[in-house]
Amino acid sequence: MNTKIDLNEMGLCQMLRAIEEGACTTESVINACFDRIEAREPDVGAWQLKRSRDEYLAYYQAHKVFFDASLLKGLPLGVKDIIDTEEMPTEMGSSIHTGRRPVEDATCVALIRAAGGIVLGKTVTTEFAYFKPGKTKNPADLERTPGGSSSGSAAAIFDNMVPMALGSQTAASVIRPAAYCGAIGYVGSRGEFSLRGGQPLAQSLDSLGLFARNVEDIQLLRAILLRQPASIKSSASTAPKCVLVCHGKLVGDTSSAMENATQNAIEILKAQGVKVIELDAGNRIKDMVNHHINIMAWEVCRNLAIESFHQDQLSDPLAALMEQGLGMDRATYIDSLDATQACRDWLWNYAPEADAILAPAAPDIAPLGHAATGAPHMSRPWQAMGLPVINVPGMTDENGVPLGLQLIGKVRQDDTLLNHANWLMPLFAK
Amino acid sequence: MNTKIDLNEMGLCQMLRAIEEGACTTESVINACFDRIEAREPDVGAWQLKRSRDEYLAYYQAHKVFFDASLLKGLPLGVKDIIDTEEMPTEMGSSIHTGRRPVEDATCVALIRAAGGIVLGKTVTTEFAYFKPGKTKNPADLERTPGGSSSGSAAAIFDNMVPMALGSQTAASVIRPAAYCGAIGYVGSRGEFSLRGGQPLAQSLDSLGLFARNVEDIQLLRAILLRQPASIKSSASTAPKCVLVCHGKLVGDTSSAMENATQNAIEILKAQGVKVIELDAGNRIKDMVNHHINIMAWEVCRNLAIESFHQDQLSDPLAALMEQGLGMDRATYIDSLDATQACRDWLWNYAPEADAILAPAAPDIAPLGHAATGAPHMSRPWQAMGLPVINVPGMTDENGVPLGLQLIGKVRQDDTLLNHANWLMPLFAK
Repeated sequence: MNTKIDLNEMGLCQMLRAIEEGACTTESVINACFDRIEAREPDVGAWQLKRSRDEYLAYYQAHKVFFDASLLKGLPLGVKDIIDTEEMPTEMGSSIHTGRRPVEDATCVALIRAAGGIVLGKTVTTEFAYFKPGKTKNPADLERTPGGSSSGSAAAIFDNMVPMALGSQTAASVIRPAAYCGAIGYVGSRGEFSLRGGQPLAQSLDSLGLFARNVEDIQLLRAILLRQPASIKSSASTAPKCVLVCHGKLVGDTSSAMENATQNAIEILKAQGVKVIELDAGNRIKDMVNHHINIMAWEVCRNLAIESFHQDQLSDPLAALMEQGLGMDRATYIDSLDATQACRDWLWNYAPEADAILAPAAPDIAPLGHAATGAPHMSRPWQAMGLPVINVPGMTDENGVPLGLQLIGKVRQDDTLLNHANWLMPLFAK
Repeated sequence: MNTKIDLNEMGLCQMLRAIEEGACTTESVINACFDRIEAREPDVGAWQLKRSRDEYLAYYQAHKVFFDASLLKGLPLGVKDIIDTEEMPTEMGSSIHTGRRPVEDATCVALIRAAGGIVLGKTVTTEFAYFKPGKTKNPADLERTPGGSSSGSAAAIFDNMVPMALGSQTAASVIRPAAYCGAIGYVGSRGEFSLRGGQPLAQSLDSLGLFARNVEDIQLLRAILLRQPASIKSSASTAPKCVLVCHGKLVGDTSSAMENATQNAIEILKAQGVKVIELDAGNRIKDMVNHHINIMAWEVCRNLAIESFHQDQLSDPLAALMEQGLGMDRATYIDSLDATQACRDWLWNYAPEADAILAPAAPDIAPLGHAATGAPHMSRPWQAMGLPVINVPGMTDENGVPLGLQLIGKVRQDDTLLNHANWLMPLFAK
C-alpha cells in the first residue's frame, strides 16, 4: 500500500482491497474518515447530521461479524438529506420538515446497508433539492459555492470525508456540484434505479445520483443498487471509438476557461485515436433548457403539494417556480415533454456512430460566494432527455479550481458510459 | 333530487350538487355511507381500517367551516392501503408492515384532503399490490373475487360505501377489479400524477388509479390531483370519430361472454356512427404480456428490497416474482423496455385516425372463489405502454355479473379519453 496517502483519501474499492489484503483495518479507515471530518467540517459544512465517532464504532463493533463478511465492510456512506433514512431524520433542507423521521430507509440506502455500508450521516441539500443553499462551502476553495443541490455529498467526497455518497438530480443537482468540487458524480438513466424513499421533485426528471472518487467505485455501487454481481476488483474500462462533442455555447453561457477545457478534452481524445464529431445543433439543445424548466415547474408544484400549503416557509425561488407551474397551461407542459422525446431521437440519429457525448458539466468553475449554487443550464438538456451522465473531474483552471466535463450516454446504456468514463478519467487527471 | 335512490348511491358530483342545492346535507350523505358500510362490510370486507361514524362526524364538525366552503364538502374517500396516510397506518397487505405509520400523506391524499375530502379509511389491497388476496369479496356476487390489487377500493365504490377511492395499477390492479365489480376505474398515463407516498412496485409501470361511479367524478378528481380548475357541473362528453378494437384473443384467453360483450360494444359504436377498425396485430399485443412480466419482475425485486430481506413473510407468488427478477439477465429487461416503446409507436401508426382503443378489461366475469384475484393479462400490454385507461362498466353476462370493457387512450391524452368514456358509458349501461 502507498503510505503517502492517508487512508481516507483512497477510493472505496482501494479501501476494500486494502482491508482484504490486510494492509489496514476497517477501524483504521473509519477513524481516518472521522479525523478528516473533525478537521474540516467546521470549514466545509458538508453534514446536516452525523453519527459521532463513538456511536459509529460501537455500531460497527456490535455487528462486526456481519460487516467483516460483507462486501462494503462497514465503510461510511453519506446520504443526501432528501433521501429517507430510518436511523436519522430527513429534513430536505426545509424548516417544514425539521426533525422528520421516516418510517423506513429509501431503497438505495437499504441496499447499501445490506451490502455492509454504514450511514455516517445526512449530507447537506438545498431546500427540497432546488436552489436555496445550505451551509456547505466548496472544499476546493472555501470562498466558492459547492454547487447544489447535492452540495454536501459532493463536498464530502472531494474532501475525503467518506468514500461514497448518495445524491439526486432533477436539473443539475449531481453534475454541477461534482463539477464544482472536482468529484465524480454519476446520474443514472431515467427509470434505472428505484427511487422509493427518495423524496420526488419532478417525476419526469428525477434520477438517483452517486458520488465517489473513482469510476470503479461508481461501478461497484451501481451493481449493488441493481442487485447485480458486484466486485471490488479490476473494473471495466473501454475507449470509445467516437465521441460527439457539444460545446457549451450550444447550451448557454460558457466561460473561456470552460471552452479551453473542452478544446483540451478534444485534443486528448484525438491523441488517443478517438474520432471526434463536433455537434452542430442550432438551437435544439438550447431549447431543451426551457423545455426542462417547463416540465420541472409543472411537476414540482404537484409533487410538493404538502409543502405548497406552507407558503411562508418556502424560499422565494421555490415559491416562484411553484407559481410558474400552477399558472402554466397544460399544453405547454405536454409540448415540452414531446419536444424532449423528439430531441433525444434526433440527437442519436445525428451521429449514430458516437458512443457518448462530451459537454461542459457547468458553465465555469464554481462562482465565488455562498448565496447561490451556480447556474444549472448545462445539465438541463440531458436531464430532460433522461440520459445517463457522469462528471469526469481532473481538469482545472489556471489556479487549480476544478473544471468539470460531463460524459453523456445513451439511455439505459449506463454500463457502457461508465466503462468509457473509467478509460477517460486518468487522461483528464494528468 | 331523485328520492328513489339512497343518498350514498349517488355519484360524487351528484352528491355535491345536491348539497349545494340544499336537497340534502353533508351529514346526511355521510350517514348514508356509514349506514351502507355497517350493513354490508361484514360480507364485503372492503376496508382494512376505517374511522367510526362518530369519529368521522366529530372531525367534520370540528372543521365544518372549512369543509362547507370546500369543493368536496367533507365527503368520504377510500384510500388503497398501499398509499400513505398520515392519520392511519399503511400496511400494504403484508405482515412486514403491521402498524406502519407514515410520516405524511401521499400527495394524492393531501390534495384531495385539501379540496375537502375526508379519508374514511384504508381499503384492502393484495400483498404489496401483487397477487395474494385480502379479505374482500365481490359485492356484485359475494361468491366471486373482487379482483386485485385495488380490491377494497373497487368494492367500496360498486357497493356505494363511498363516492370516491384511490388505487394504483402496475399490471391490472385498477382495471381488473373495476371490471369485476362493475365500477369505473381510471388509470392515468405513466408520469401523469405525483406518486409521492404511493409505495412503488415497478417504476416503469406504476400508475395512480381513481375509482368512482360516474366519469364526471373521475374528471373532477383528476382536476383536483392536477391542481387544475375543477367543477362539479356539466362535465365534457365527446363521441369518438373512430375506435380501434382489440379483441381479447389478441391478448390471451378470453371467454365467449367477453367476446359477445366486445361484439355488442362494436354494434353500439357503429349504431352511433362511430367508425370501428378491428386490430390485426398478429402476436404483437400478446408479446407485450411477457414483456410486461419481464419489466415487472426486474423492477419489483429492486423496489421491494427491504421486504425481500423478510423472505419468510412473503407469499409464494411474490417470492417467485422476485426470484425471477433477481435471476433475469439485464439484456432481457432492456429488450422488453425497448419492445414496449416500439409497440406503442407501431400501434398508433396502425390506425392514426383512431381516437381510442376498445378492449376487454378482463378475460371474463370475476372467477368464483377468493383464493386468487383473476388473470391480469388483459391489462399488461396497455400498462407496459404507459397508456391511460378507463374501465367502462355497464355490460353484464346473462346472470347480471359485470363484464368490463376498457377504453384506452393515447399517452398523456387522458382528458380526451375521459371525454369519450363519458359519452360511451350511458350507452353501455342501457
